[in-house]
Amino acid sequence: MAKPIILITNDDGVLAPGLRTLISVMRKIGKVVVVAPDKPQSAMAHAITINTPLRVTTIHKEENYSEYSCNGTPVDCVKLGQKVILRGNPDLLVSGINHGSNASINIIYSGTMAAVLEGAMENVPSIGFSMTDYSMHADFSQCEPFITKLAESVLKNGLPKGVCLNVNIPAPNGKTIAGMKVVRQARAYWDEEFDERQDPHSRDYYWLKGVFVNADEGTDTDDWALRNNYVSVVPVKIDLTSHENIALLKSWNIEQP
Amino acid sequence: MAKPIILITNDDGVLAPGLRTLISVMRKIGKVVVVAPDKPQSAMAHAITINTPLRVTTIHKEENYSEYSCNGTPVDCVKLGQKVILRGNPDLLVSGINHGSNASINIIYSGTMAAVLEGAMENVPSIGFSMTDYSMHADFSQCEPFITKLAESVLKNGLPKGVCLNVNIPAPNGKTIAGMKVVRQARAYWDEEFDERQDPHSRDYYWLKGVFVNADEGTDTDDWALRNNYVSVVPVKIDLTSHENIALLKSWNIEQP
Repeated sequence: MAKPIILITNDDGVLAPGLRTLISVMRKIGKVVVVAPDKPQSAMAHAITINTPLRVTTIHKEENYSEYSCNGTPVDCVKLGQKVILRGNPDLLVSGINHGSNASINIIYSGTMAAVLEGAMENVPSIGFSMTDYSMHADFSQCEPFITKLAESVLKNGLPKGVCLNVNIPAPNGKTIAGMKVVRQARAYWDEEFDERQDPHSRDYYWLKGVFVNADEGTDTDDWALRNNYVSVVPVKIDLTSHENIALLKSWNIEQP
Repeated sequence: MAKPIILITNDDGVLAPGLRTLISVMRKIGKVVVVAPDKPQSAMAHAITINTPLRVTTIHKEENYSEYSCNGTPVDCVKLGQKVILRGNPDLLVSGINHGSNASINIIYSGTMAAVLEGAMENVPSIGFSMTDYSMHADFSQCEPFITKLAESVLKNGLPKGVCLNVNIPAPNGKTIAGMKVVRQARAYWDEEFDERQDPHSRDYYWLKGVFVNADEGTDTDDWALRNNYVSVVPVKIDLTSHENIALLKSWNIEQP
């Protein structure tokens, strides 16, 4: 059987250790094409570049493995990878391994997961991997079996149209990861404030800081899984409609003139 | 009864005519605080500023009406409005009127709608307004009754936790808008390619272009409503979990070691 074509991107940039780990795992499974941002693009969400030109730099090229960087966002990388480099859909798109959690509400801000949603929009089976450790020295040593199992399952089974996977891996901190759980996005939030500072010219500026708060007591959530040392797997969809509230809005009689 | 406090933002920037229209409508309903980007921020999605300082400039201040610009994204504007300027939640957040459609899959890229999702994450009843006309000379003359009806309905009824509204208004093109429809996000996509060009130094660069394609034949979608000259109202949720696919993934036995 022909080796599957795997497109890889991330949002921490082409040099990030999490990306290098993901590349090394994927090269055992298929033909790998990397298109990653040339600089960190965390918290860029689903931003795309529309007002400035995009550039692509070839970093490495050999049979079954090529690597490119681009000056855009993670979503730009997916579009360029698919339309300029591969000129067709890959068999699988993987993004990450992100340095830092994309569980729960973090998915909304994440460039790593935006790339995955973009894949789903293009009917490419797509998986995002993140580890709950922001450090550039995060310990990825236990990730491979989980990543391999998920990638092979998705290559075998496909994914429903418009659905992708948000996978978060607990930082091991000396422990053995307990296993994998299929769960839902926890209803958590960031309790944030701005640090209010003055620059050397006495002008005010602001810097966001915050604490992640999970008030969701469910034991079927990604946050629960991670706190209990499991890899969390959340099926994510690109349809943001709150179908269950269409009837409620209709009851407001806003459709009547 | 005290006038409601209304926070307004957008992604086209503080000078955009769509924002000015929304401000004039909202000033008839409540106390208005505008915090908008100092430059266009279209297609920034849910990006936030984490690596550089945020600045806030006071543009106007009178009783019941103040206006600020900021050097960040639409989501930064919401966070600054809530945490630095209001120092508490507004009674309503409105974003727009965007110059260009945010119906269907466009919601994923939209800075206007990201601001609205951010409001929902902070438990603020939030509505995004967009018109299907990219021009800075878009005709907003028929918008007011629809915007007023929705704003007053939301102020009266609230919105379910984690749910906000994506409202798109058809460009009138000489016709009278037919009314309002509560609908779902159409399963549409962008058929895109990159314009491949060379700069004066013979280096390649790429520019994204695309055509919106709706293969969804439902008559209960936002795209259907707009094509039939109705304002579309989609309830949108911040939980991206594809709940209906959790059982499917469990059937892959990925939870077993």
